[in-house]
Amino acid sequence: MNKVEPKTLPGFMELLPGDQILFNQMYDKIRKVYEKFGFLPLDTPTIEYSEVLLAKAGGETEKQIYRFNKGDNDLSLRFDLTVPLARYVAEHYNDLAFPFKRYQMSKVFRGERPQKGRFREFYQCDIDVIGNETLSIIYDAEIPAIIYELFKELDFGPFIIRINNRKILNGFFKSLDLSENASDILRIIDKIDKIGIDEVKEILIDMDIDKDKVDKILAFISINGTNEEIINSLKELNINDEVFNEGLDEIEKVVNYIKDFCIDEKYYKIDLTIARGLDYYTGTVYETNLVDYPNLGSVCSGGRYDNLTGYYTSQNLPGIGISIGLTRLFSQLLSEGIITSDQKCMLDALIIPFDDSNIGYTLKVANSLRDNGKIIDVYYDNKGLKAKMKYANRLGVSKVIVIGSDEIENNSVTLKNMETGEQELVSLDKIASKI
Amino acid sequence: MNKVEPKTLPGFMELLPGDQILFNQMYDKIRKVYEKFGFLPLDTPTIEYSEVLLAKAGGETEKQIYRFNKGDNDLSLRFDLTVPLARYVAEHYNDLAFPFKRYQMSKVFRGERPQKGRFREFYQCDIDVIGNETLSIIYDAEIPAIIYELFKELDFGPFIIRINNRKILNGFFKSLDLSENASDILRIIDKIDKIGIDEVKEILIDMDIDKDKVDKILAFISINGTNEEIINSLKELNINDEVFNEGLDEIEKVVNYIKDFCIDEKYYKIDLTIARGLDYYTGTVYETNLVDYPNLGSVCSGGRYDNLTGYYTSQNLPGIGISIGLTRLFSQLLSEGIITSDQKCMLDALIIPFDDSNIGYTLKVANSLRDNGKIIDVYYDNKGLKAKMKYANRLGVSKVIVIGSDEIENNSVTLKNMETGEQELVSLDKIASKI
Repeated sequence: MNKVEPKTLPGFMELLPGDQILFNQMYDKIRKVYEKFGFLPLDTPTIEYSEVLLAKAGGETEKQIYRFNKGDNDLSLRFDLTVPLARYVAEHYNDLAFPFKRYQMSKVFRGERPQKGRFREFYQCDIDVIGNETLSIIYDAEIPAIIYELFKELDFGPFIIRINNRKILNGFFKSLDLSENASDILRIIDKIDKIGIDEVKEILIDMDIDKDKVDKILAFISINGTNEEIINSLKELNINDEVFNEGLDEIEKVVNYIKDFCIDEKYYKIDLTIARGLDYYTGTVYETNLVDYPNLGSVCSGGRYDNLTGYYTSQNLPGIGISIGLTRLFSQLLSEGIITSDQKCMLDALIIPFDDSNIGYTLKVANSLRDNGKIIDVYYDNKGLKAKMKYANRLGVSKVIVIGSDEIENNSVTLKNMETGEQELVSLDKIASKI
Repeated sequence: MNKVEPKTLPGFMELLPGDQILFNQMYDKIRKVYEKFGFLPLDTPTIEYSEVLLAKAGGETEKQIYRFNKGDNDLSLRFDLTVPLARYVAEHYNDLAFPFKRYQMSKVFRGERPQKGRFREFYQCDIDVIGNETLSIIYDAEIPAIIYELFKELDFGPFIIRINNRKILNGFFKSLDLSENASDILRIIDKIDKIGIDEVKEILIDMDIDKDKVDKILAFISINGTNEEIINSLKELNINDEVFNEGLDEIEKVVNYIKDFCIDEKYYKIDLTIARGLDYYTGTVYETNLVDYPNLGSVCSGGRYDNLTGYYTSQNLPGIGISIGLTRLFSQLLSEGIITSDQKCMLDALIIPFDDSNIGYTLKVANSLRDNGKIIDVYYDNKGLKAKMKYANRLGVSKVIVIGSDEIENNSVTLKNMETGEQELVSLDKIASKI
């Protein structure tokens, strides 16, 4: 028979079981935190009408999307979870309780040129809260509380949630009469972590912005200190712009409410350089960084937007949300050595019967351990002990139970600790408590 | 702005939150059972090279598959989880421990004509054990033990696992010199539950099969009784065919090993009418039926096959596996009223502060309950109590905690039982134990 080469596409992550276990543990931790805060699960279709998914999109999205015809239908694979959420909320508006809090942790697809750390198929782990007409500013403070819980659970070391408000930025640029250049300027400021303040200055001057305005911009984005100090500095700018002052009022409220969530101030910080996307967000925005691994960039980002479903309905549905790009994050954490899947194994024990004549007894042990909630594998193939121990080693299991005629005679098992090599005879009634 | 109609494609299941919670609970139960038996998680890409996915396929599969070009690549969405498993095992052969036990519970895609109970995108929940050259017959008995655990956990009432062996069927037809017609006859026998024995007889006669052979076939598939009785009846047929007797020997072993798994015989039964697919399976085959709901058909099926990866490698890798078509099963269970999502809610409680001035105290309560592992939602929007209680009702939450100035003064909360309408003042230190 002609053989087909078994291979996957570049840009599509596929893991060996040890890594997959590690990935799933991260996935489950994130899910559990989202659920703890009352977010409801959602699972939208992978394939939707292109017309629906591309209602808003243009440019890069159109180029990257996986789009095809089947029968008479023009179909696409979802490229994010926000557009399907918008469609879902618009379609099921009458069946939902608002504020509608949902999480979705699913694969999305972008056919971009594959490069290191970029994937064509990847998990996004999103939460959003969608309000009906209004949405309390307190949700803007709950989001950092959730991010805090997430990264406490995930345990990758110290992290910092950086918070800004688009209204502060927009109002500030309006006050400088630079509203028209605002998106360009924001795009440059967004890069400040990568290119540094000097290059930002150069680019701004190249844009024909007055030198004194450039200085004001640089002074503005250099405002630093505690959250309280930053808010005071912003107040002292005495900017007489409604949008600016609305943003300032919002960020002050958000920072105060976060205190009520009992989160230590070392975990969050106002950062006026965060712009976060260009057209989408309209209020509070977030980025999250792992302090010891700055080159990973933001590992959890999001913000507030005015109207989720504008392309589908005339309802006014403001929302706020965050996303973790889990596939990318996982791949970065692995390659930086921040996490390791060495010997990752979910088994509480592997049971190895010496030969088939021990099966009855072996299954009695396996049944009883599983009834005790243990995760148990049994090696049934009638091979030599060497092959059986090789299997144990490859699985990375830390405890092996060996059963032969001696053990059966003594109503016991031999428990081997694979890390230390120690083994002991354990009676049947004690084995569950030993593993 | 022109609005796009928010809608999904026919044949793609999308659930409201209550149903989604119920679906996820089923999904999680299945996953937990698979893990308990030592199966490793796998998550293959949704998109693969068409050449790889279609290495074996033809006919219906080619017609149904979602296939498209992106750049220079001819791509397809997976239409099952078995072909990706074969590709995975062939590709990662050197990195896997054999027997390789994996579960995968993912969406697959088939662009067939949508009809009641048929989906174009649906979850399959698969386990397979893949041996290297050999695979012990004991795995054939572990599979029913897993099915038993699954349907005990899922709790849809009494069920029966029907077991057969393809070798018995093949050998039997060979002994009648009907090997060439075997697949056709099996296909007809496979339908016996739907069309009845009389119509099976008619079709067989129409196929120009000798009357006495038809009688023998009907006598054969009518063999009934306890598992022991069926095995004895098969032995009494005195069929001198190697394949038949191999199958008979296998099924006897399987049935005896199942006893060792301590499963009551009312849950499994040899059924000689089960053929299960036509070319794929080569030994033990399984179907599972819910006794009280026979019209659901088999809810969990599978069997043993000789060589998983023949299209990709020259290794000989026999395997055994089962699959649950979860999307279809869920949809059937819902429409038959076997499960219901009425008021399905994951929250332990919803906290409702009277107004924003109560937020600090409210968050203190929420934090402390979440720290106690409770799933807690808080309603932050500053609306009237009526709107807040409507939200509670729509979520289907059974316990609501109301916080106003009286509660704060008394260092307590008001706990309202939404089912009985009763409410009581509960002090802060007692609230966690009350929800």
